[in-house]
Amino acid sequence: MRTQVGIVGAGPAGLLLSHLLHRAGIESVVLECRSREYVEHRIRAGVLEQGSVDLLRSCGLGERLDREGLRHEGIELRFGGAAHRIAMTELTGRAITVYGQQEVVKDLIAARTAAGGDLRFEVSDVRLAGLDSDAPVIRFRHQGRAEELHCDFVAGCDGSHGVSRPSVPAGELTEYDRSYPFAWLGILAAAPPATEELIYAHHDRGFALYSMRSPEISRLYLQVEPETDIAEWPDERIWSELRTRLETVPGWTLNTGPILEKSVTGMRSLVVEPMRWRRLFLAGDAVHIVPPTGAKGMNLALADVTLLGDAFAAFYREGREDLLDAYSDTALRRVWRAQHFSWWMTSLLHRLRTDDPYEAKLQLSTLRYVTSSRAYATSLAENYVGLPEV
Amino acid sequence: MRTQVGIVGAGPAGLLLSHLLHRAGIESVVLECRSREYVEHRIRAGVLEQGSVDLLRSCGLGERLDREGLRHEGIELRFGGAAHRIAMTELTGRAITVYGQQEVVKDLIAARTAAGGDLRFEVSDVRLAGLDSDAPVIRFRHQGRAEELHCDFVAGCDGSHGVSRPSVPAGELTEYDRSYPFAWLGILAAAPPATEELIYAHHDRGFALYSMRSPEISRLYLQVEPETDIAEWPDERIWSELRTRLETVPGWTLNTGPILEKSVTGMRSLVVEPMRWRRLFLAGDAVHIVPPTGAKGMNLALADVTLLGDAFAAFYREGREDLLDAYSDTALRRVWRAQHFSWWMTSLLHRLRTDDPYEAKLQLSTLRYVTSSRAYATSLAENYVGLPEV
Repeated sequence: MRTQVGIVGAGPAGLLLSHLLHRAGIESVVLECRSREYVEHRIRAGVLEQGSVDLLRSCGLGERLDREGLRHEGIELRFGGAAHRIAMTELTGRAITVYGQQEVVKDLIAARTAAGGDLRFEVSDVRLAGLDSDAPVIRFRHQGRAEELHCDFVAGCDGSHGVSRPSVPAGELTEYDRSYPFAWLGILAAAPPATEELIYAHHDRGFALYSMRSPEISRLYLQVEPETDIAEWPDERIWSELRTRLETVPGWTLNTGPILEKSVTGMRSLVVEPMRWRRLFLAGDAVHIVPPTGAKGMNLALADVTLLGDAFAAFYREGREDLLDAYSDTALRRVWRAQHFSWWMTSLLHRLRTDDPYEAKLQLSTLRYVTSSRAYATSLAENYVGLPEV
Repeated sequence: MRTQVGIVGAGPAGLLLSHLLHRAGIESVVLECRSREYVEHRIRAGVLEQGSVDLLRSCGLGERLDREGLRHEGIELRFGGAAHRIAMTELTGRAITVYGQQEVVKDLIAARTAAGGDLRFEVSDVRLAGLDSDAPVIRFRHQGRAEELHCDFVAGCDGSHGVSRPSVPAGELTEYDRSYPFAWLGILAAAPPATEELIYAHHDRGFALYSMRSPEISRLYLQVEPETDIAEWPDERIWSELRTRLETVPGWTLNTGPILEKSVTGMRSLVVEPMRWRRLFLAGDAVHIVPPTGAKGMNLALADVTLLGDAFAAFYREGREDLLDAYSDTALRRVWRAQHFSWWMTSLLHRLRTDDPYEAKLQLSTLRYVTSSRAYATSLAENYVGLPEV
């Protein structure tokens, strides 16, 4: 079996890359360990930057997004018993759209399938070889058979636990990382959102986030201890803690409903450089992780493969390698901007080390500043909606 | 001996307070352990915010300041081999003025002396008593005699090593502090500045700052290890290190000249709350310290005593205690804003822990961002020139 670009991973990065390559007349095959059912229902990120929305629209993926996505022109910062709105659109001219990652994945799979794209789910034993030659090979098993995919390039879009990054020889990549002394407990609830815009709440007991996925489904998060056992959080405890941290503004109450899903997610910052080794190009979570506070993960993945799509198009159409050579440096500028923003939002809103009262005071001063200075609020807003150029 | 407000310390805070009280028809006596000669020549801060300049002008202290002060409308951030200007005045409509703290002190002493003000230098054994009564007493020795100053209020403007703060009973004040793993080696040199605006240089070997005090005198700083012995830094080593860190932009060279003074200053952030205990009001370095990176120390001291001057005026003129009662909370908003800004500037520009490469990458991303985003640059600029309202 042969293709031009072998893509490992059918998340937003791998699928969008395959879609963009197809539109540029370039063949690809997408290999995914999980089932189609699984990736289409995996609950992950849910906020698209303006640039991500524009991108999806411009490549023919805007129809359902425009119909079902929820456009938001502001977010709320809640602290000290008061609500403060960051008027993103007024400050930047741009907006975000709430649309789950799994919906983006469904749209992409539908588009690739309609175009006859070659997507292989439930593959196993994926191994990359020949990455330092002109003829890489991806070996894998599919439907009981051993297969070989010969290609010109491999795109590693298989997340932080994927096989692509570990396929690079030791010593070739540098990891930059940071951990946080807390995690997020997230729930999906069949409850109409009690708010039209996302609420980022700073509270002495820890951070809470009120978001939504549709007019019927709420998505809420609580800052918890890093090694939290979900069994210690029965539904009633979750709602009670959410009430404590969110019902701090007079007259405002949560809507509750059956909890459809709950999970605990660790918080980590990670960047691996460079994002390319010879014929392997890495994108999305395979090379960088951000804490979810800034809602940047999926947007970065889409931005990475947009660069990669253009670079492959220039290579196949004009024989140019300059964009492929520039890919890592170009992508990393946006990656580090998002790393800084995600770290900043995380540090601003969470309960930090309790043994450093100076830090807590600094946090309150920053919260007051971001809700009173137009310049500083604009800096939050422009990062949140996504900077066009980085 | 009796007065209305007994002031401990003849730095910018104590002297300006005495001056403002005099203009409001309120009597004060200023007690200072050092000699007049010493305080008039002590080299400290040198940057006045727009609001500080406006204040000094409005109370009759603008003449020499306007003649000799150097108005700056921008600063330079130098990193990665390039110069980046933060156009403060274009971004905020305001500017800073370079004018040494000792010049402000000279102007204030001259004004107080001309008005017949009671300033006592070289006092010793200062002790505060009766602070929790309506009749505090300051006991001290002066010209060989034991003296008692009876007053309605005491203003503690005697810096971080003064007697005022330790006069408050244990447990009444809370300290918030942070230390930094570096110090500044500062020199005053008889060399015409090689730059019209201040240069804040980020370099792998550490931070350097190029500033000036007059068209003939340069003031330069180097980040050094915290316990640095000045003896290990002969003049030639200082100039060589300054060249390495500052001569990173093609064609740009330092001017050198005889070094008139050199010293090593530790870096610390400290806030003590509240800023009042009964009849004792604390201001300036006596209750808060910032690292010098943001040039905020003297400006905060002047802002504190401006509030205090208004509060005493309201008390003596109208019998109102509300401004005295609000003093600490009101002052602390500006104090914490400056704490955050000074910490931020310090963290942005210095070489931080070498064992955290993630931090260094975050720093570079932030430097690129502040020199490319109008919003973020405005946030730096508005803090640097001083926020009118906090």
